[in-house]
Amino acid sequence: TRSGVPEAVLAEGKTPTEVADLIATGLETTGRAIATRLTPDHREAVHDHLDESHPGATIEDDQRARTLVARAPDFESPNLDATVGVVTAGTSDAIPAGEATTLLEEMGASVERIDDIGVASLARMLDQLGVLREQDVLIVAAGREGALPTVIAGLVDVPVIGLPVSTGYGHGGEGEAALSGMVQSCTALSVVNVDAGFTAGAQAGLIARQLDDARES
Amino acid sequence: TRSGVPEAVLAEGKTPTEVADLIATGLETTGRAIATRLTPDHREAVHDHLDESHPGATIEDDQRARTLVARAPDFESPNLDATVGVVTAGTSDAIPAGEATTLLEEMGASVERIDDIGVASLARMLDQLGVLREQDVLIVAAGREGALPTVIAGLVDVPVIGLPVSTGYGHGGEGEAALSGMVQSCTALSVVNVDAGFTAGAQAGLIARQLDDARES
Amino acid sequence: TRSGVPEAVLAEGKTPTEVADLIATGLETTGRAIATRLTPDHREAVHDHLDESHPGATIEDDQRARTLVARAPDFESPNLDATVGVVTAGTSDAIPAGEATTLLEEMGASVERIDDIGVASLARMLDQLGVLREQDVLIVAAGREGALPTVIAGLVDVPVIGLPVSTGYGHGGEGEAALSGMVQSCTALSVVNVDAGFTAGAQAGLIARQLDDARES
Amino acid sequence: TRSGVPEAVLAEGKTPTEVADLIATGLETTGRAIATRLTPDHREAVHDHLDESHPGATIEDDQRARTLVARAPDFESPNLDATVGVVTAGTSDAIPAGEATTLLEEMGASVERIDDIGVASLARMLDQLGVLREQDVLIVAAGREGALPTVIAGLVDVPVIGLPVSTGYGHGGEGEAALSGMVQSCTALSVVNVDAGFTAGAQAGLIARQLDDARES
Amino acid sequence: TRSGVPEAVLAEGKTPTEVADLIATGLETTGRAIATRLTPDHREAVHDHLDESHPGATIEDDQRARTLVARAPDFESPNLDATVGVVTAGTSDAIPAGEATTLLEEMGASVERIDDIGVASLARMLDQLGVLREQDVLIVAAGREGALPTVIAGLVDVPVIGLPVSTGYGHGGEGEAALSGMVQSCTALSVVNVDAGFTAGAQAGLIARQLDDARES
Amino acid sequence: TRSGVPEAVLAEGKTPTEVADLIATGLETTGRAIATRLTPDHREAVHDHLDESHPGATIEDDQRARTLVARAPDFESPNLDATVGVVTAGTSDAIPAGEATTLLEEMGASVERIDDIGVASLARMLDQLGVLREQDVLIVAAGREGALPTVIAGLVDVPVIGLPVSTGYGHGGEGEAALSGMVQSCTALSVVNVDAGFTAGAQAGLIARQLDDARES
Amino acid sequence: TRSGVPEAVLAEGKTPTEVADLIATGLETTGRAIATRLTPDHREAVHDHLDESHPGATIEDDQRARTLVARAPDFESPNLDATVGVVTAGTSDAIPAGEATTLLEEMGASVERIDDIGVASLARMLDQLGVLREQDVLIVAAGREGALPTVIAGLVDVPVIGLPVSTGYGHGGEGEAALSGMVQSCTALSVVNVDAGFTAGAQAGLIARQLDDARES
Amino acid sequence: TRSGVPEAVLAEGKTPTEVADLIATGLETTGRAIATRLTPDHREAVHDHLDESHPGATIEDDQRARTLVARAPDFESPNLDATVGVVTAGTSDAIPAGEATTLLEEMGASVERIDDIGVASLARMLDQLGVLREQDVLIVAAGREGALPTVIAGLVDVPVIGLPVSTGYGHGGEGEAALSGMVQSCTALSVVNVDAGFTAGAQAGLIARQLDDARES
Ligand SMILES: Nc1ncnc2c1ncn2[C@@H]1O[C@H](COP(=O)(O)O)[C@@H](O)[C@H]1O
Ligand SMILES: Nc1ncnc2c1ncn2[C@@H]1O[C@H](COP(=O)(O)O)[C@@H](O)[C@H]1O
Ligand SMILES: Nc1ncnc2c1ncn2[C@@H]1O[C@H](COP(=O)(O)O)[C@@H](O)[C@H]1O
Ligand SMILES: Nc1ncnc2c1ncn2[C@@H]1O[C@H](COP(=O)(O)O)[C@@H](O)[C@H]1O
Ligand SMILES: [Mg+2]
Ligand SMILES: [Mg+2]
Ligand SMILES: [Mg+2]
Ligand SMILES: [Mg+2]
Ligand SMILES: [Mg+2]
Ligand SMILES: [Mg+2]
Ligand SMILES: [Mg+2]
Ligand SMILES: [Mg+2]
Repeated sequence: TRSGVPEAVLAEGKTPTEVADLIATGLETTGRAIATRLTPDHREAVHDHLDESHPGATIEDDQRARTLVARAPDFESPNLDATVGVVTAGTSDAIPAGEATTLLEEMGASVERIDDIGVASLARMLDQLGVLREQDVLIVAAGREGALPTVIAGLVDVPVIGLPVSTGYGHGGEGEAALSGMVQSCTALSVVNVDAGFTAGAQAGLIARQLDDARES
Repeated sequence: TRSGVPEAVLAEGKTPTEVADLIATGLETTGRAIATRLTPDHREAVHDHLDESHPGATIEDDQRARTLVARAPDFESPNLDATVGVVTAGTSDAIPAGEATTLLEEMGASVERIDDIGVASLARMLDQLGVLREQDVLIVAAGREGALPTVIAGLVDVPVIGLPVSTGYGHGGEGEAALSGMVQSCTALSVVNVDAGFTAGAQAGLIARQLDDARES
Repeated sequence: TRSGVPEAVLAEGKTPTEVADLIATGLETTGRAIATRLTPDHREAVHDHLDESHPGATIEDDQRARTLVARAPDFESPNLDATVGVVTAGTSDAIPAGEATTLLEEMGASVERIDDIGVASLARMLDQLGVLREQDVLIVAAGREGALPTVIAGLVDVPVIGLPVSTGYGHGGEGEAALSGMVQSCTALSVVNVDAGFTAGAQAGLIARQLDDARES
Repeated sequence: TRSGVPEAVLAEGKTPTEVADLIATGLETTGRAIATRLTPDHREAVHDHLDESHPGATIEDDQRARTLVARAPDFESPNLDATVGVVTAGTSDAIPAGEATTLLEEMGASVERIDDIGVASLARMLDQLGVLREQDVLIVAAGREGALPTVIAGLVDVPVIGLPVSTGYGHGGEGEAALSGMVQSCTALSVVNVDAGFTAGAQAGLIARQLDDARES
Repeated sequence: TRSGVPEAVLAEGKTPTEVADLIATGLETTGRAIATRLTPDHREAVHDHLDESHPGATIEDDQRARTLVARAPDFESPNLDATVGVVTAGTSDAIPAGEATTLLEEMGASVERIDDIGVASLARMLDQLGVLREQDVLIVAAGREGALPTVIAGLVDVPVIGLPVSTGYGHGGEGEAALSGMVQSCTALSVVNVDAGFTAGAQAGLIARQLDDARES
Repeated sequence: TRSGVPEAVLAEGKTPTEVADLIATGLETTGRAIATRLTPDHREAVHDHLDESHPGATIEDDQRARTLVARAPDFESPNLDATVGVVTAGTSDAIPAGEATTLLEEMGASVERIDDIGVASLARMLDQLGVLREQDVLIVAAGREGALPTVIAGLVDVPVIGLPVSTGYGHGGEGEAALSGMVQSCTALSVVNVDAGFTAGAQAGLIARQLDDARES
Repeated sequence: TRSGVPEAVLAEGKTPTEVADLIATGLETTGRAIATRLTPDHREAVHDHLDESHPGATIEDDQRARTLVARAPDFESPNLDATVGVVTAGTSDAIPAGEATTLLEEMGASVERIDDIGVASLARMLDQLGVLREQDVLIVAAGREGALPTVIAGLVDVPVIGLPVSTGYGHGGEGEAALSGMVQSCTALSVVNVDAGFTAGAQAGLIARQLDDARES
Repeated sequence: TRSGVPEAVLAEGKTPTEVADLIATGLETTGRAIATRLTPDHREAVHDHLDESHPGATIEDDQRARTLVARAPDFESPNLDATVGVVTAGTSDAIPAGEATTLLEEMGASVERIDDIGVASLARMLDQLGVLREQDVLIVAAGREGALPTVIAGLVDVPVIGLPVSTGYGHGGEGEAALSGMVQSCTALSVVNVDAGFTAGAQAGLIARQLDDARES
C-alpha cells in the first residue's frame, strides 16, 4: 500500500470464520495474508478454509507469537539488506516481540532475536552488548517497569524503539508504567503503544527499507 | 557519547548562572554546547559569560525554538547524507519542532521544515505531499487532537515519528489527547513524549546517521 | 415523549425475558418498541414472546447493529424531509453506527451510510466528499485515534457529530483516545460518549426534525 | 472557509502585538476579525493598532465574554433566519456562553440569552420553559456537576448542546465532572470540550445555517 | 457494636459455604445475620445450612436487592421513630437502593421507597415532592450522570445522601461520573462510594437513631 | 431558601468589588450575608463598602477560616438545640473546618471544635473519645491519607461526615487520597468533596435542624 | 542470586504444565522452588509432575496463600536470627500476607502472624501492641482505605512496610485508595505495589538478613 | 516520639514567622528542631528569630537540600552504628536526597552520598558497585522514568528504598512514571511517595536503629 506497511488481520474480536475469510481474500488480492492475535480456534478455521480453497498456499504458524502468514505459491517475499534486533526482557514479552518479528520478516528485514535479558540480571544483558551494537535498529520489549529500553539506549548508538508490554498488576499495571517510563526515558527512545508489536515492527521495517535503499544505491 | 546523542542543557528549572556555567563547560570538553528551553534571562547570561570567557566562540540563537548552540572556533560540525522533514500542524508547534530541528542540525542531518499544514485545512497538506515523500524520515508535531501524523503516515512510506504538543485545554488538554491519539494511530507511527522535540530529533538523528553510514559504504 | 426522542430498551444487563416483556409493553403503549445491544438470546426471546402475544406485529432485526424494532400493524412511521449521513472509519464501527441508523430511521430521517473511509486511506474518503457535502447533518464514527470526524469537519460545512468507538487496546484504548481527540478537535465538532450511537442518532434526529419543520413551512 | 466556520484568534498564549497583527490581517483578508480570551492588554493593543492602521474599522468589545470583533466599513454581516438559545446555570458560565454568543452573532444567528437558571433553583428554570421550547437549538452551559443540560433536554424537544464549564474544585473539578456527566446524560445531548464556547457556537451556527437554508427554499 | 452499625456479610468474593457458615455464626452470636450481594448459589447454601442447623430461624430474602436476613426466633428487632426515604432514578438503581433499605429496616427505621423518578422525566419527580419533603432523611440513588440527588436537594430542606450507581458505559462510566457529579453538586449533599448502598443505609440509620433518641426524650 | 441552606458568596474568583456588592445585596435581601475563601483584599473591600453603605451592620471576620459574616442590626440568628463536633487532624485542616463551623453557627447549631487529634498520635484522639461520643453529629476533616474519620467512626455511634482536605503532594496529593480513602472506608462514613467545608457544614446543619425539630415536639 | 532474593515462579498467566516444568527446573538448579498465585490446576500439575520426576522432594502447599514450595531432600533451609511481624486488617488480606510469609520463611526469617486487627475495631489492634513492638520489622497488609499501617506506624518504632490489598469496589477500588493512602501517610511507611506480598516479603527478608548479620558479629 | 522518628517542620505553605516560631518551640521542647523545604525567606526569619531568642543555639543550613537544623547547646546527637547509602541519578534529585540525608544524620546514621550515577551512563554506576554493596541500606532517588533503583536492586543484596522525584514533563511527568515504575519493579524495592525524601530517610533511619541495636548486643 501507499503507507508502505502490509495489511494484517487483527483476529481479536473477530469470529474464526471472519478471520478465515479475510485471510483468503488477502491471499487472492496480494498473494499473502498476515494475521495477529489468533486463538487456536482462529488458527483451525484458517487451516480448514485454506486447505479447501487454496490447497497450494503455504501457511506459517507462530503459536508463541500468535501470528499466522499464508502465502500463494507464486508470492515473492521481499528481501531487505538490513537487520533489526528484537529484544525481550522476559518470557512474558514473547507475544508482542513475536508480532514484531513476523511483520519484519514479511517486510523482508533480517531479524535477530535477543531474549530474556531484563534488567533484573544486568550481566546477561551486558554479555549481549556486542550483538546489540551490530543491529541497524533495535526494538526492545519490556513489561512491568519497562526499564530495559532505557538501559540499552544508553549503551548503543543505534535507534531504539521501546515496546511496552501489558504485564504487571496493581498501580501502573497493564503496561501503563512501562509506557510512561519509556516516554519519560532520559535516553533517546521512540515508543509505540502497549503490546503494539505490530506497530513497532512496521516502524522498524520502514527504517530497514530506507537502509536497504541507501545500501543499494 | 556512547549513546550517539550529543549532550544538551535543559535550561528550564536552572538559574541563568547555572546554565551559563554548563554551556562554558560543554564548550571546553566537547567543543560545542547545546541548550534548550531558555528564557531571555538565560540567553543573556550565556552571552555575557561567553563574551568574557570564550570570546572566540560563535553563538547561534533560535529564539522561536528557545534553543542556543555555542561552538568553539575549531569545532568541526558533522555532516550526514540524510534529510529529515520536520513538520508542524500550526504555529503553536514551533517550539518542540524547533528543538528537534536544532538537535538534528547539530547531529549533521539536513532538515526540511514544512510548517502549518494541520488537518483543519487538508489542501495545504496535500500540496506538500511531494516534499513529504522525498524525506528520509519525518517528525510530525501536532497538538490538540494530534491527527496530523496519522494522516501523513497513511500517505507516505517513510518512517514517521509523532511529536505531541501541549496545546489544548479541558479534557485531554496539555497534549494528553495528542499522545494517546498517536499511540492509538491506525498507521505505523512511533511516538515521543509531549513536547519532547529533543527526543524526536535525537531518534531521527540516529536513523539519519545509520542512513549516512549505509550511503557511504 | 416530551423530550422528542423515542424510548428504547437497552438490552445489555437485562435478561431475555425482561427485554421481551419491555418490548411487548412498548408495543402496546406506543405502537412501536426499539431495543439496542441485543444478544442472540435476547433476540430469540423477543421473537418467541411476540409470536404468541402480538402475532400481527412486524419485527425488524439488524444483527450487525444489534438492534431490533417491533411495530404494531397500525403504527404510522414518521417521515422527515431531512437526510443524515452516517459515516464509519472501519468495520469495527458498525455497531454504534448501526444503532444511530436504526434510531434515525425510527425518527423518520433518511439515512445515507458511507462506510470504511478511515484516515489510513485518505483517497477513499476524498472520493466520498461530494456525498458527504450533500447531507444535512453527519454522524462520524471512529475508534482508536478517532481522527476521521476532524478531517471531515475541515472539508464540509454541515454540522458533524463525532461518535467515538471503543476499539483500540493499551493507553487511550476503549475509546478514550478517540473521545479526547474529538473534544480537542481543531474543527467544530460536537461529540457523544464512547459507543453512544443511540445518543448520536437522537441528537441528529432532533436536528432533522427541526429541518423538516423548516422545510414544511 | 470550506469548513463553514469563521476563523478566530485565540488570544490566550499570544502577545498583545501578535494578536493585534492577526486582527489587522484578518480585517484585510476577510473584512472581519474575531478574537477570544483577550486580556485587557490584548484589547488595548488591538485598539491602538487599528486606530492607526484601520481608522474606519468598527470594534465591538465584549469584556464579559472576553471577545472582540473588528469589521471593515464595508463588511456585510450575514443574517440567518434561525434562533439559538444560549443558557447559563450561573454567573461563572458567562465567559464560555459569551464566546458562543459572539460567534453565533457573527455567523448571523439570532441569539436569545437565558441566564442563571441553574438546577439549585429549579423554579427559575421552569419559568423559562416556554422560551426554551421556542428556540431552534439550545446551548446550555454549566459547571460543577453540570446537571442543567440534562434537566432541560428532558423537557424540550429541540437539540441541546452541552457546554461544560471549568468551575468547581477538588475531585471532578475544572469541568471534568460536568463533561463526564454530560456525556453520561440519560437524555439526548451532544457535548463540546470544557470551556469550548467557541466550538459550541460554531456547531450551533452550522445548524442555524442549515435551518436558514431550509426556510429560504 | 461500638460503631452503631450491625455487621453484615459481603457475599461477593466468598464461596457459598463460607457465607453460610458466617451467617450461622452471626445468628448464634447476635441473634441475627445480614448478608449482601448474594448470588442464587449463596442463597441456596444459606437455606440448606440453616434448615439443618437452625430450623427455628426465619430467613428473609430480597432477590431484587440481593440481600438476605436471618433471625433467631427470639431476636427482637429494633424500632425507631424516624423515616428514611429511599429514592431511585431508574430500575438499574434497585440493587444498591435495596441494600440501603434492608440495612435501614434492620436498624429499625421506617423506609419509604420512591422509585423511578429520574431527571429524564421531571414531572414524575415533581409529583413526589410532597412525599420527599415529609421524610426525615433521603437517600437518592442514581447512575449515569447522577443528577437526581442534586435536583432533589435543591427542592427539599431535609438532609440528602447521594448514592452513585455503577451504570453507564464509556467515559465516566461505572459510576465515576455520578460520584464526581455528586461531590461537585451545587447543593448540600453528602455522598457515599459507587454502589455503596450498605454505607448509605448505615449513615442514614445512624441519623434515624439520633432522631429517635431526640423524639423519645 | 427552599433548600434549607443559607446562600453564601464564594469569594474565590471574584473581584473585591464584586464580593462587597454581593455582601451588601445579601444584607438587604435576607438581613445577613456569608462569604467564604476571602483574601485580605476581599475583606478590606467589604469593610470599606459596608462602613459607608450599612453603618449599622455588624461584621464577623474569621481570618483563620477565611470566612466573613455580616448582619443587619435587626437580624435574628436562628438557634438549634443540637451540637455538631467539628474535628481536625492537624493545623492544615483549619480552613475547611472553619468554613463548616461558620456555616453551622449561622444555621444555629452549637459547634464543639476538637482540634489536632490526627492518627499519627492516637493517644490525643483517644483522650477526646468522651467528647466525641457526646456530639449529635461529627464532621471530621483530614488531609494526606485521611484516616482519621475512619478511625473515629469505628469508635462512636453518631453519624460521621468525612471532610477530605487538599494537603499532601505527589501521588494521591491535593486531597485525592483522602477522598478515595474516605469513600472506601470500612466504617459508615458519608463524605463531601475535597475542601468542601461549606457543604459539610450545610449537611450537618440540616441534620441538626431535624434534631432540633424532634426535640421541640 | 546476586540480588539476595530467591527466584519464584508467578503461576498467574502460565499453564499448569509450564509451572510444573519451571518448578522441576528450579528444584534441580537450586534445590528449591517457590511458586505464587497457583490455582488448584497448577497445584495438581506440580504434584503429578514431581511425584514422578522427583519422588524424594517434599512439597509444602499453602492453599490460603496460594503458594507452593518444593525442596530437594538435601536442601538446607537458611535460618536468620530476626523476626518479621506479618499483620492483616481482615480476611481478604490473607493471600498477599501469605505470599509474604512464605517468602520470608524461605529466606529464613521467623514470622509472627497477627491477623484481623483492622481499624474498624481499634481495641483488637491495641491489644496486640506489645507483640507488634517486639518485632524487628512489620509488614502491614490492608485493603479498602488502607489505614492500618498508618495507625500502627504511629504507635511503634520499628520499620513498617505497607502492603495495599486489592479489595474495595467503586472509586479508589482495586487497592488504589489503599496505595495512595499509604504513600500519603503522615507516618514513616515504605510501601510496595497493590497485592505485592512477594515484594514486601523480599524487602523485609533483606532487612532480616542484615539484622542476622549484625547479630552474628 | 513513640513512632521513633523526630518531628520536623514542613516549611512549604507556612509563613516565615510561623516556621521561625515552630523552630523555637521545637528547640525548647526537645533540644533540636528540623525543618524542610525552606525558602530563603523562611531561612532568614529563622536566623533572625533564633539570634535573638536562642543566641546559644547552633544552626545548620543545607541550602541545596532546603533543610535546616537548630540545636540547643546541650543537645546530644544520637550516634548509630549503621551506614545508609543515599544515591542520586542526577542533579535534579538533590533536594529529596538531601532531605533524606539530613533526617538520617539527625537520627544518628552515617550517610554515604553516591551522586549522579543515573542509568543513561551505566559505567559510572558500575564503578560504584563496590561502595553500594558495602552499605547497610540504600535510598535511591530518581526522576523521569526512575529506572535506577531497579537496576541497582538487581546488583546488590541490601534492602533498597526507591525515592521517586518529580522531574519530567508530559505524560507520566511530575514523578508519576517514576513512582509507578518503582512499584512495578521486577526487583525487591520498597517505595515512598514522590519527593518524600523525609519519609525515605525516616524509614532507613528506623532500619539503621534496628541494626545498631543488633550490633550493640
Ligand atoms: N496486533 C495488531 N496491532 C495493531 N494493529 C494491527 C494488529 N494486527 C493488525 N493490525 C492492523 O489493524 C488493521 C486491521 O483492522 P481490522 O480491519 O479490524 O482487521 C490493519 O490495517 C492492520 O494493519
Ligand atoms: N445504546 C444506548 N445507549 C444509550 N442510551 C440508550 C441506549 N439504548 C437505550 N437507551 C436509553 O436508555 C434508556 C433505557 O434505560 P433502561 O431503563 O435501563 O432500559 C432509555 O431511556 C433509552 O432512551
Ligand atoms: N466554600 C464554598 N464551597 C462550596 N460552595 C460554596 C462555598 N461558598 C459558597 N458556596 C455556594 O456556592 C454558591 C455561590 O456561588 P457564586 O454564585 O459563584 O457566589 C452559593 O450558592 C453557595 O451556597
Ligand atoms: N506474586 C508475585 N508478585 C511479584 N513478583 C513475583 C511474584 N511471584 C514471583 N514473582 C517474581 O516474578 C518473577 C517471575 O516472573 P516469570 O519469569 O514470569 O515467572 C520472578 O523473578 C519472581 O521473583
Ligand atoms: Mg506510512
Ligand atoms: Mg542510544
Ligand atoms: Mg430533549
Ligand atoms: Mg466543517
Ligand atoms: Mg460509627
Ligand atoms: Mg436541600
Ligand atoms: Mg537486590
Ligand atoms: Mg513508627
